[in-house]
Amino acid sequence: MSYKSDIEIAREAQKKPIQEIGLKIGIGHEDLLPYGHDKAKVSQSFINSVQGNDDGKLILVTAINPTPAGEGKTTTTVGLGDGLNKIGKNAMICIREASLGPNFGMKGGAAGGGYAQVVPMEEMNLHFTGDFHAITSAHSLLSAMIDNHIYWGNECDIDTRRVAWRRVVDMNDRALRVITASLGGVSNGFPREAGFDITVASEVMAILCLANDLKDLEKRLGDIIVAYRRDKTPVYCRDIKAEGAMTVLLKDAMQPNLVQTLENNPAFVHGGPFANIAHGCNSVIATKTALKISDYVVTEAGFGADLGAEKFMNIKCRKAGIAPSAVVLVATVRAMKMNGGVAKADLGAENVEAVNAGCANLGRHIENIKSFGVPVVVAINHFVTDTDAEVAAVKAYAETHGVEAVLSRHWELGSEGSADLARKVVEIVDAGQANFAPIYPDEMSLFDKIDTIAKRIYRADEVLADNKIRNQLKEWEDAGYGNLPVCMAKTQYSFSTDPSLRGAPVGHSVPVREVRLSAGAGFIVAVCGEIMTMPGLPRKPASESIRLNDDGQIEGLF
Amino acid sequence: MSYKSDIEIAREAQKKPIQEIGLKIGIGHEDLLPYGHDKAKVSQSFINSVQGNDDGKLILVTAINPTPAGEGKTTTTVGLGDGLNKIGKNAMICIREASLGPNFGMKGGAAGGGYAQVVPMEEMNLHFTGDFHAITSAHSLLSAMIDNHIYWGNECDIDTRRVAWRRVVDMNDRALRVITASLGGVSNGFPREAGFDITVASEVMAILCLANDLKDLEKRLGDIIVAYRRDKTPVYCRDIKAEGAMTVLLKDAMQPNLVQTLENNPAFVHGGPFANIAHGCNSVIATKTALKISDYVVTEAGFGADLGAEKFMNIKCRKAGIAPSAVVLVATVRAMKMNGGVAKADLGAENVEAVNAGCANLGRHIENIKSFGVPVVVAINHFVTDTDAEVAAVKAYAETHGVEAVLSRHWELGSEGSADLARKVVEIVDAGQANFAPIYPDEMSLFDKIDTIAKRIYRADEVLADNKIRNQLKEWEDAGYGNLPVCMAKTQYSFSTDPSLRGAPVGHSVPVREVRLSAGAGFIVAVCGEIMTMPGLPRKPASESIRLNDDGQIEGLF
Repeated sequence: MSYKSDIEIAREAQKKPIQEIGLKIGIGHEDLLPYGHDKAKVSQSFINSVQGNDDGKLILVTAINPTPAGEGKTTTTVGLGDGLNKIGKNAMICIREASLGPNFGMKGGAAGGGYAQVVPMEEMNLHFTGDFHAITSAHSLLSAMIDNHIYWGNECDIDTRRVAWRRVVDMNDRALRVITASLGGVSNGFPREAGFDITVASEVMAILCLANDLKDLEKRLGDIIVAYRRDKTPVYCRDIKAEGAMTVLLKDAMQPNLVQTLENNPAFVHGGPFANIAHGCNSVIATKTALKISDYVVTEAGFGADLGAEKFMNIKCRKAGIAPSAVVLVATVRAMKMNGGVAKADLGAENVEAVNAGCANLGRHIENIKSFGVPVVVAINHFVTDTDAEVAAVKAYAETHGVEAVLSRHWELGSEGSADLARKVVEIVDAGQANFAPIYPDEMSLFDKIDTIAKRIYRADEVLADNKIRNQLKEWEDAGYGNLPVCMAKTQYSFSTDPSLRGAPVGHSVPVREVRLSAGAGFIVAVCGEIMTMPGLPRKPASESIRLNDDGQIEGLF
Repeated sequence: MSYKSDIEIAREAQKKPIQEIGLKIGIGHEDLLPYGHDKAKVSQSFINSVQGNDDGKLILVTAINPTPAGEGKTTTTVGLGDGLNKIGKNAMICIREASLGPNFGMKGGAAGGGYAQVVPMEEMNLHFTGDFHAITSAHSLLSAMIDNHIYWGNECDIDTRRVAWRRVVDMNDRALRVITASLGGVSNGFPREAGFDITVASEVMAILCLANDLKDLEKRLGDIIVAYRRDKTPVYCRDIKAEGAMTVLLKDAMQPNLVQTLENNPAFVHGGPFANIAHGCNSVIATKTALKISDYVVTEAGFGADLGAEKFMNIKCRKAGIAPSAVVLVATVRAMKMNGGVAKADLGAENVEAVNAGCANLGRHIENIKSFGVPVVVAINHFVTDTDAEVAAVKAYAETHGVEAVLSRHWELGSEGSADLARKVVEIVDAGQANFAPIYPDEMSLFDKIDTIAKRIYRADEVLADNKIRNQLKEWEDAGYGNLPVCMAKTQYSFSTDPSLRGAPVGHSVPVREVRLSAGAGFIVAVCGEIMTMPGLPRKPASESIRLNDDGQIEGLF
């Protein structure tokens, strides 16, 4: 049996005009700002108008540690949203936007897969509604204003060796990682080292995704530390007077984007911060708006639950004052097998023993999520090669942790395949068992926050950090930043910092190589491994094959 | 008497839904891709569907050499368009898009002024429909692919000292004019000198504005020379295999943007190439589409007629196979006085003698335009301080050149004020006097083309160019580029290359400092003076004052 590709399915989608989708969730014509016929932004006045509504229930979709086998977290998010609508619930989903640059390296990513997708897929992988371009512009304006400030007399006494604000471009361009700028003579400024990150790594992206409204956005932008003086005191974005114009550039980008699933259910696709040096969740404003207009909101977090769900709980929920009513933990039989030691080439053969061995990874994530006071259901995202015995093994394992694992066939069948999962999720949510709390209080010292995550989530024996790092954390506490949460930057492939350690490793250490202060976003980044903030293109980049065919269709992007 | 500011007038505009504007020119709902409620793109399928229509008449609005007094070329373009509609004609206008970056240096520009404006003004000065972001992305992709090609083995043998393709960003960022890139070690590539221009200076911008369709766009992008080998042979964009993906990125940007004037008449605002290193006209696709759906199309060209009209005729019209039926030459009494030697501070006082003296500038432009075989009408863009005697002096002078000068009060009165001008233009156009031809043939040698423009348009005695430049031109002729037109990069303030020489200078020389080949756009650039392709921000940039006020309105942008 052969299956259609994601793009084939997406191109066959029977999309409804976006105005119809908007009306489903109560957004009238005037409040829906269309971008073509199948995308729209929700007006600020609509968002203001629903603030008095009761909140719906929030459901987080997260996953085991990712493996090359693929887990299908977004696919399950979409499938669950469609499933909830299928069983008669008023539900919508909130997911992240895709970054433009990486599409030209590897092939572009779908938003979901199979019959659980969000469309228009191509636009979502290209310019979409321009949000990331606006972020690039706002970031670039601040960059230009910093060097311009130095050029015209440097009133703020910026130490040009200590400019913390790098530049960004939404392209995989390794040649810009490290540069010297302001060369070429007096009229071009004072030569200094600089460099570019990819746009999704911009602190502006993290800020946009955490800001509650435009006022909050402007305040946070002003809080960005752009440089330090020779005495090491910080120079803020507001010292450079850039936050007002940056807010103007981000005005439209702050409005959530409405699109639809293949089954014509509403989806907000908004924001896309890195899941390592940032918190990896869609925007707070989209999630909160969705909660005001839907009874059930399904959202997801980046990477596996050790990184994504942890940050969702400790950063996004804490900051936004929201709480999940249930967590759906996505696993696949194939991924369990890989966690159990099977090589990718051998995944086709039934291997119940390997499934059982790999389930340790699943079990630890279940325990971790429960420690936030939130009930869990495991979604087994069905692959056509899965055997009944393998599926039964995962279900049996989940039961030993007191949770149910539900087989979900949304990839193959759309909402027909995810209705069971949806019913189970509704049962758990409506039972009102959740008693959410972050796993550390604001008042805890910064180092202890890192230590808490490392020991309670990663199950490490210890955190390794030299005095330079510990002193830096203390300095930030003295400067008033001690109440911030911590954003861990660690490999997504393991609970440990060693990407090859699958399953549920114990006895490991978490070395903190570097700490960074994102004062505008409002978190401390603890870097525990190599973090690449500007990817490169591969030897044969996808861009070499991308083109419009004679029918005007895009080839090579997917 | 006090007058409202442009932004006050623009904010009071009674805009109609863009779908209504579209219907006026026969664009149905399906073919109009809205961006919010007041901007839209015209679908490629609509453009295809009107190719069999007869062409309307094309009217170029150009001006005398710009002075600090202001001429109001765009204002007159808009006013004339409204005036034509007022007198019952089916007319539309085609103008350029604004660049984002410069808004943060000086205050942003309106599209027109007074009661002759195109709206929405704010969006048009910010992200608009994302065209320039798409150009930045396409340009950046090629940049990244060039360095990536070098990184992975440099199969094309690019001499890293001779990479001709600079990077771009749509921001005034002088620190990026000259950089060294690919620093930081083996994994970041081979260190080399590089630099950034502002996006509007990108050859991609010029190409987008000259391309007839997506196929032509892709072909021209492939023709870009990105670098040279040690043997000085060129490496093309298509050798790097970037043109297909660039075309995909530019797919939407190739569709003209529809907006409206304050009087709800249709306007295409599309493309915005530099008027010095490029040809400074709105897109060919917008102009040609407008000609298919309107009886009269009013468009404009950058700077004064010596640069803008000359390039419009010799480059845009030649390449696009279009021809103007009339030229409106905009002049103001104030500008005549400045050309006649009056300082800006003294412009308020009546000075007929100075008007008469300054008219020499006007006269030469009239003669030049006639030399293309196109009839001229002078539009005196009325300022409230103009006296009757001064206006009469301009009219009388124009008559000595056999053309009529019409006073037009669109700034103050909208179409009520421009109806006379509109009637005169229709009279000239409908008389069918035009017999357009470029002033040099394709077959003329490149140097002789420069010489022809310098002598016939600038009225210079000679062109100064050393052997290096003459040899370079010969090399390009040998390589098959001899048939290209020449794009002059010269000060806009004078017929000569000395910006302080107002009026109608004679006896001057035109020194060619440098020549560049824009093989994708399809012209040779002759640089005759300092050309700044990356502006800087001033000491107190406008961005320091730009912000959203409590009503959500933008302050400080205008």
